Amino acid sequence: MCELFAMSSSEPANVTFSLGVFGERGGRLGPHRDGWGLAFAERRDFRIVKEAEPAASSACMRFVESNEIRSTIVISHLRLATGRRIVSYENTHPFARELYGRTHVLAHNGDVPGVLDDPRFEPSWHFPLGETDSERAFCALMDRLRAGLAPDTGQDLAAKLPIVRQWAGELARHGTANFLLSDGEHLFAHRSTRLFVVERSCPASYESLGSDSLRASLTTSGAATQRVALVATQPLTLDEAWTELPAGEVVVLRRGRRVVA
Amino acid sequence: MCELFAMSSSEPANVTFSLGVFGERGGRLGPHRDGWGLAFAERRDFRIVKEAEPAASSACMRFVESNEIRSTIVISHLRLATGRRIVSYENTHPFARELYGRTHVLAHNGDVPGVLDDPRFEPSWHFPLGETDSERAFCALMDRLRAGLAPDTGQDLAAKLPIVRQWAGELARHGTANFLLSDGEHLFAHRSTRLFVVERSCPASYESLGSDSLRASLTTSGAATQRVALVATQPLTLDEAWTELPAGEVVVLRRGRRVVA
Repeated sequence: MCELFAMSSSEPANVTFSLGVFGERGGRLGPHRDGWGLAFAERRDFRIVKEAEPAASSACMRFVESNEIRSTIVISHLRLATGRRIVSYENTHPFARELYGRTHVLAHNGDVPGVLDDPRFEPSWHFPLGETDSERAFCALMDRLRAGLAPDTGQDLAAKLPIVRQWAGELARHGTANFLLSDGEHLFAHRSTRLFVVERSCPASYESLGSDSLRASLTTSGAATQRVALVATQPLTLDEAWTELPAGEVVVLRRGRRVVA
Repeated sequence: MCELFAMSSSEPANVTFSLGVFGERGGRLGPHRDGWGLAFAERRDFRIVKEAEPAASSACMRFVESNEIRSTIVISHLRLATGRRIVSYENTHPFARELYGRTHVLAHNGDVPGVLDDPRFEPSWHFPLGETDSERAFCALMDRLRAGLAPDTGQDLAAKLPIVRQWAGELARHGTANFLLSDGEHLFAHRSTRLFVVERSCPASYESLGSDSLRASLTTSGAATQRVALVATQPLTLDEAWTELPAGEVVVLRRGRRVVA
């Protein structure tokens, strides 16, 4: 299983992660076997931290567990299951490409092997660095966004969303398309099987979130006006109403608020 | 002053860095004021670690100082002087873009402000994320490489080098063009003012290299056949013959060996 997590916030917030496989009492039973990756929005760019290998004790992991980065959008991807894929840095999510002066990132959970043979996903401008179906699909999306948008409409949601929806539909017909996509302003989320969301305002200034494989600590400014939305493969808090995303729909979050669907 | 450093090696080698401003006896007198960045080749991708702010004690810096990454190409950029530039993540070198399935990275030392007004550097496909003259110049190079090459000739040095040379000449006419550029296989280096190179085979399996602002530790396999070439703003070892790169020429290194110029 893969696990997805994302945060969208109206004000920069700090998210630190403990990655591993956790037991019922919270103890870490083991590392993730097949890599993990994080993306933190930095104005028009994303800071990407990822690792292809089990890394419970690596320097990279220690960096993540003690990071001081504050951001308005954070995306993470954990790969827990072994598969047919080549385990390497460039096959590790999230993937990133620049379009019209904005880094875009994708984290995808699910197998869509038919993408590798489908001419609708043939790259023309953005080419995969690795071998995964997910990255090939991402490159096709970036090609379509480039063709359908222009430098001055690259962030126009009304123009962008139909392209993402069309692509998500084609992706889902090839298999499972749980994904998180961001252009640094919008967070697009799509569920085929499992993906939950919670929205709140006035959050606690510090809190811990957790599942069997992810522990996250969220530190916000505590400002009364701050809004935060979280998306995850499974609900990470017990005292809130996490709702399942509508299957097959592209949900859009912006500054901690659901703006579409 | 900015400081550039690069390694090209026939076999993966580990380079760890201590970043700071060092005194005569090696003690760290202070952090870099305006950011630093590193790029490590990972097959067809690069792992980028960079930070816009003084960071002598940051988690990101600790990661760099204890990193376990082995790579055949490493590029680093330190910015030591304050300038007119906006200090932000996306304005921090190295810059990266994907072309024909290979991440390309650039670290540049020098001011080339005329690039911002020169229509020859107007972006058409690769757009800057930030405001620097360096990133705009890099995007123009990537546009030219995309236009002049094809997916199956993207790594053809005979086709690529004339484009890089033409661009380097135009860049140098706008100011100072000391740069390090890589496509993950080739390391291109160009000197306007200061840039030195040393090549060796059978290096020591462990050694320390240092200048006033950079301490690097290089761990190689110790194999008799390993070749390593280092490029730096100033010679980093005392007992070797570092030679200044020919001014205005694009030098190409591959697998630890100079293959052009």
